[in-house]
Amino acid sequence: MSAAPGRDGCVFCRIVAGDAGAHVVLEDEHTVAFLDHTPLFAGHTLVVPRHHVVTLDELVPESISPLMATVQRLVAAMPEALGCQGTFVANNNVVSQSVPHLHVHVVPRTRGDGLRGFFWPRHPYAPGEAEAAAARLRAALNGRAGGR
Amino acid sequence: MSAAPGRDGCVFCRIVAGDAGAHVVLEDEHTVAFLDHTPLFAGHTLVVPRHHVVTLDELVPESISPLMATVQRLVAAMPEALGCQGTFVANNNVVSQSVPHLHVHVVPRTRGDGLRGFFWPRHPYAPGEAEAAAARLRAALNGRAGGR
Repeated sequence: MSAAPGRDGCVFCRIVAGDAGAHVVLEDEHTVAFLDHTPLFAGHTLVVPRHHVVTLDELVPESISPLMATVQRLVAAMPEALGCQGTFVANNNVVSQSVPHLHVHVVPRTRGDGLRGFFWPRHPYAPGEAEAAAARLRAALNGRAGGR
Repeated sequence: MSAAPGRDGCVFCRIVAGDAGAHVVLEDEHTVAFLDHTPLFAGHTLVVPRHHVVTLDELVPESISPLMATVQRLVAAMPEALGCQGTFVANNNVVSQSVPHLHVHVVPRTRGDGLRGFFWPRHPYAPGEAEAAAARLRAALNGRAGGR
């Protein structure tokens, strides 16, 4: 399988090219899936596109389906493979993104595993705050209606 | 826009059908995006397929692209709309899934926002543990090679 164009110094491009070691669990023409080396739980996998992009919104439409198909295969396989009941799928863009090559985490979840996850702390909106946030989002989305 | 077939008692099907209130920020033929009512940060949005499925792996290939296109549009729009620098995209399947209708969280992230997120605690693998986890995943994935 040919290596995608990589970026100098990008560790995930080096894994994709076979130039850096990783526990690869699945690869196809468009994506490579390998174990995170500091997992939340054993089996925590990263799915990356072979082609170097930084954030999710940079991925062209024809590349999003193969990436997500690999994520779906992992979501389906993990309970049988790892004895978990569920999965946590996550992607950080810019903030908390440790490696600037798009990656989707697929993490096995077991009831009572102690992960508070990202759902803490959460607070209801103050009066008027939700309306204002929704209006700002709608305005920015409408301004981008012609783009992706 | 016609409502998709819903499930009795599913609050997200009711939002999709317009029978339950929500701050909708974007909708198209396949997806609806609306504010989470107890956000991590203001503007925290949920993207759902109109058609009721529970987990990510249940989504048919022709539905994953529109869902992710809406997620991508939110990832692109949030910095302008909300003044954030990044985004956190996440999906819980079964464990920690509060509503059993597939939903993808798109959360604005700002440097120094105090979210430790899901990256704590993480530990390196003990010797042999990564090899064993990767082998179990590969075996389960190979057993599912013909399916999704």
